[in-house]
Amino acid sequence: MLSNEKRGDAVDLSHHLSKVGQARLTSPLKGLQKYMGKPGLISLAGGLPNAAYFPFSSVSGEILAPDSFPLESGSEKSSLSWFWRLFSKPDKERTLTFTVGKYSQHPGDLDLENGLQYGMASGQPKLNEVIREFVGKVFQPSYSNWTTLVHTGNTDAWSKTVQTILNPGEGLIVSEWTYPSAMASAQPLGINPVPVGMDSEGMSSVSLRQLLAEWDESARGMPRPHVLYTVPIGQNPTGATMGIQRKKEIYDICVEYDIIIVEDDPYYFLQEGKYVPKSERLVESNTDDEAFIASLAPSYLKLDYQGRVIRLDTFSKTVCPGSRLGWFTCNPMFAERLERTAETSSQAPSGFTQIYVASLLLKWKYEGYMRWLKALRLQYRQRRDYFLDCFADEFHLQKTLSTEGYTAGTHVYYASLKPKRSFVPLSEKDVAYAKSLFSFVPPSSGMFLWLELHLEEHPSFKSLGYKALEMKLWTEIAEAGVLFAPGAMFFATPVEDDTPGYGHFRISFSNSTPEELKKAVSTLSTVLRNFMKN
Amino acid sequence: MLSNEKRGDAVDLSHHLSKVGQARLTSPLKGLQKYMGKPGLISLAGGLPNAAYFPFSSVSGEILAPDSFPLESGSEKSSLSWFWRLFSKPDKERTLTFTVGKYSQHPGDLDLENGLQYGMASGQPKLNEVIREFVGKVFQPSYSNWTTLVHTGNTDAWSKTVQTILNPGEGLIVSEWTYPSAMASAQPLGINPVPVGMDSEGMSSVSLRQLLAEWDESARGMPRPHVLYTVPIGQNPTGATMGIQRKKEIYDICVEYDIIIVEDDPYYFLQEGKYVPKSERLVESNTDDEAFIASLAPSYLKLDYQGRVIRLDTFSKTVCPGSRLGWFTCNPMFAERLERTAETSSQAPSGFTQIYVASLLLKWKYEGYMRWLKALRLQYRQRRDYFLDCFADEFHLQKTLSTEGYTAGTHVYYASLKPKRSFVPLSEKDVAYAKSLFSFVPPSSGMFLWLELHLEEHPSFKSLGYKALEMKLWTEIAEAGVLFAPGAMFFATPVEDDTPGYGHFRISFSNSTPEELKKAVSTLSTVLRNFMKN
Repeated sequence: MLSNEKRGDAVDLSHHLSKVGQARLTSPLKGLQKYMGKPGLISLAGGLPNAAYFPFSSVSGEILAPDSFPLESGSEKSSLSWFWRLFSKPDKERTLTFTVGKYSQHPGDLDLENGLQYGMASGQPKLNEVIREFVGKVFQPSYSNWTTLVHTGNTDAWSKTVQTILNPGEGLIVSEWTYPSAMASAQPLGINPVPVGMDSEGMSSVSLRQLLAEWDESARGMPRPHVLYTVPIGQNPTGATMGIQRKKEIYDICVEYDIIIVEDDPYYFLQEGKYVPKSERLVESNTDDEAFIASLAPSYLKLDYQGRVIRLDTFSKTVCPGSRLGWFTCNPMFAERLERTAETSSQAPSGFTQIYVASLLLKWKYEGYMRWLKALRLQYRQRRDYFLDCFADEFHLQKTLSTEGYTAGTHVYYASLKPKRSFVPLSEKDVAYAKSLFSFVPPSSGMFLWLELHLEEHPSFKSLGYKALEMKLWTEIAEAGVLFAPGAMFFATPVEDDTPGYGHFRISFSNSTPEELKKAVSTLSTVLRNFMKN
Repeated sequence: MLSNEKRGDAVDLSHHLSKVGQARLTSPLKGLQKYMGKPGLISLAGGLPNAAYFPFSSVSGEILAPDSFPLESGSEKSSLSWFWRLFSKPDKERTLTFTVGKYSQHPGDLDLENGLQYGMASGQPKLNEVIREFVGKVFQPSYSNWTTLVHTGNTDAWSKTVQTILNPGEGLIVSEWTYPSAMASAQPLGINPVPVGMDSEGMSSVSLRQLLAEWDESARGMPRPHVLYTVPIGQNPTGATMGIQRKKEIYDICVEYDIIIVEDDPYYFLQEGKYVPKSERLVESNTDDEAFIASLAPSYLKLDYQGRVIRLDTFSKTVCPGSRLGWFTCNPMFAERLERTAETSSQAPSGFTQIYVASLLLKWKYEGYMRWLKALRLQYRQRRDYFLDCFADEFHLQKTLSTEGYTAGTHVYYASLKPKRSFVPLSEKDVAYAKSLFSFVPPSSGMFLWLELHLEEHPSFKSLGYKALEMKLWTEIAEAGVLFAPGAMFFATPVEDDTPGYGHFRISFSNSTPEELKKAVSTLSTVLRNFMKN
């Protein structure tokens, strides 16, 4: 990061705006704003219902104390206590309460009169103050005039970003394995995914540079892409975490080739770190807030001295998905265009959402939210560890350093079936037991384990191919009562049956009980045992 | 309406889908749905955080009783009592309370575990049940397989509709005076407004037929439009209400020319009816629910035997704008495409919003909501009447039956300045007093009075023209502390300074105290008095 005195404003990047992004009109009511807020002003310009007709007199919430989850792993207090909490009586939870009435006592306080009224697409001032403080302290953007703008969740934020900076027929740089919903927002608008090779940190800077340097507009049928979409932490689906060195390489390439980086980062606070097998695991101990922030892979914002990053943050993973609330951090020119887009579509995020999330964060304060995030990371680490421990119990795991593909640079765990207890003779069909049937890299962030299947020994492999065999196995596991996400949908371009190496499952460990996670792994083992025989 | 046995399904209208509307992908997780809900299923497919990590233990609301406002005008209980209520102590309000906890006691009940989780873009089942019952009873669609789909407010709904059924370069049929925000959503996407003349019921069916019959594709530079946008009740800005006969004429033309009608109807329940001067006004008495529904101009849905209407409803005017919640009613083919669009943008409406609006409507029940809507209409009627009474007190009003332009077919009130009390001699400059300076049609629905200015006698009229003079007067009124919405922005195509007859203000009576409304009218009078002299 540049020191404060060295930070400049964002450079002019307005040539990246799409035709639609440029055309979004300034609100026709903008001319009225110079009069707004004048004492005694009578505004009869907008179509606002009177707050007396809002049928809510007050809304209240009971919120968890920010220290509801432990900060130390392995202690009696933690260690899957989250699981048992689900069944504990609510009165055992320590809670705080708040109430927001229709009319506030002090100007600027949250109230329903304003909170449930039409509002600026840029959201409630109280919420914006909290968000701005948070971004400054946690992500530390490297230019001076960075701006935040609330949005209604990263999916909508990405959809608005696509409209604002991409024209039909243009390319969009993505990792070769990528988040399919992001592609589903862009592709119907005529945007073409342009995949870049990956290694164990996610997108490869070497592949990116090669792609751009060798870009042949006429062969590709489109100009060199000027937008890059990335999920750098808890890469979806591989679970990779990109460190600062790689980010710097990619950022510098984007400066060189004038590319806008859209950083979709829902799993930022779910940085679980390296997986350590149970026997070698140490107790995690508490750290102060600054050390906690420093321990996280930084955002692209920290490198962004030009203002060419549009960062998407969401409360979905740290508060709740139903909030449908998040925010952009970007330069003021993009923020203004995105706000105009919001004015003509979503408008402001839900008033109820803004009231609840603002009340929560104001009640907790910055320190409380940090306390919550530290504990949340630990909860996800324990979930991840527990899930992988189940694999270690159920399968033979063998660790090998990978040097190629999306796992290059890290250890891959190869899994093979353990012999059954009643196992006696080694028949021809039992050869499968010795072979690795799948492999994975322990995810270092996020909610997912990304399983790569090795089904070449399956009797129907030659006739069915990778993709059909993936679906055949997926269906058998589903019929046995366990749902994974089939892997083919995560590939940036269509996967054919004979595309080599593309049998995968994405498996979530974020929302199940330990029993369910354990049962899912043993079901996989049981199904695989039969599957390999016919 | 056709009788039940005669109702058929919607006809095939899929040729109206835009390129983008057609291209929206089916969610890649759709294949998983056949397994969802199976007892004992372990789903590790989605990226759902565990509800234990939602920091809300419970949320509560205090809601107004559905009979909080009176059903009879003129009684001591009503008659601007809404104004005094604002300053009454909250404990005088009769309220009901509800609480939604994290885990529900009975399956299907509202809870935070599901309500704040990721959910289907189609929203919570409980909310959908209420909405479906409401549409069936109130709007009574004339085909059998009509569908409702929640959305995040009519602005977003319209934006999604534009994307789904309009291609860049196509035309969009609108009234010549129209809602500028709707145009601001469509025009940046390359959609061209095609204005149709109006009379006192809104869009003229005669003008519409003529436009379509005489459409010359090469002269117009675009094919004949296949989409019509309309605000038929409380037309924005004119406040007109379109009755069933006119709707039938327009619907039949749309069948003949194969046009989709998008009915944006936020003011449906603000049908205030005909304005009756104070001296002739009668006491309004209560009616039962069926008579109330029958007294309202019907929706296009009631005529829509083919499923070619996409109706947009919102809770913004009947509950609160901050809910950012409403619903589409349309045929299942459009609903499916709109749901796919929501999946890749807004996703589901805010969980907090869904919980609060569903809790309110479940607590009130259908009858309670009807009770609320009946009283709300009366509140707005009293506001409208009070505001027009202020004009009658402040100005000389003269009623004339209009036969042309957007007022054709109704009485127009022409306003001229009353002489000041201290008025003695009739000087040359006082000629203005005798002239009508503005006119209006009392709005029969909605929130707005639409003022037409007659400034031809102004000393600078010849040099400035209509538009600049409108802005000059607007600015003087704003400087005097009252904000109106300038009229030029409501014209479907750009207004030039010399476009005859286009000085207007749109003035809202929905959100001000009686004192403010009265003061606004006297300010207008004071400013006009000076304005006409220089």
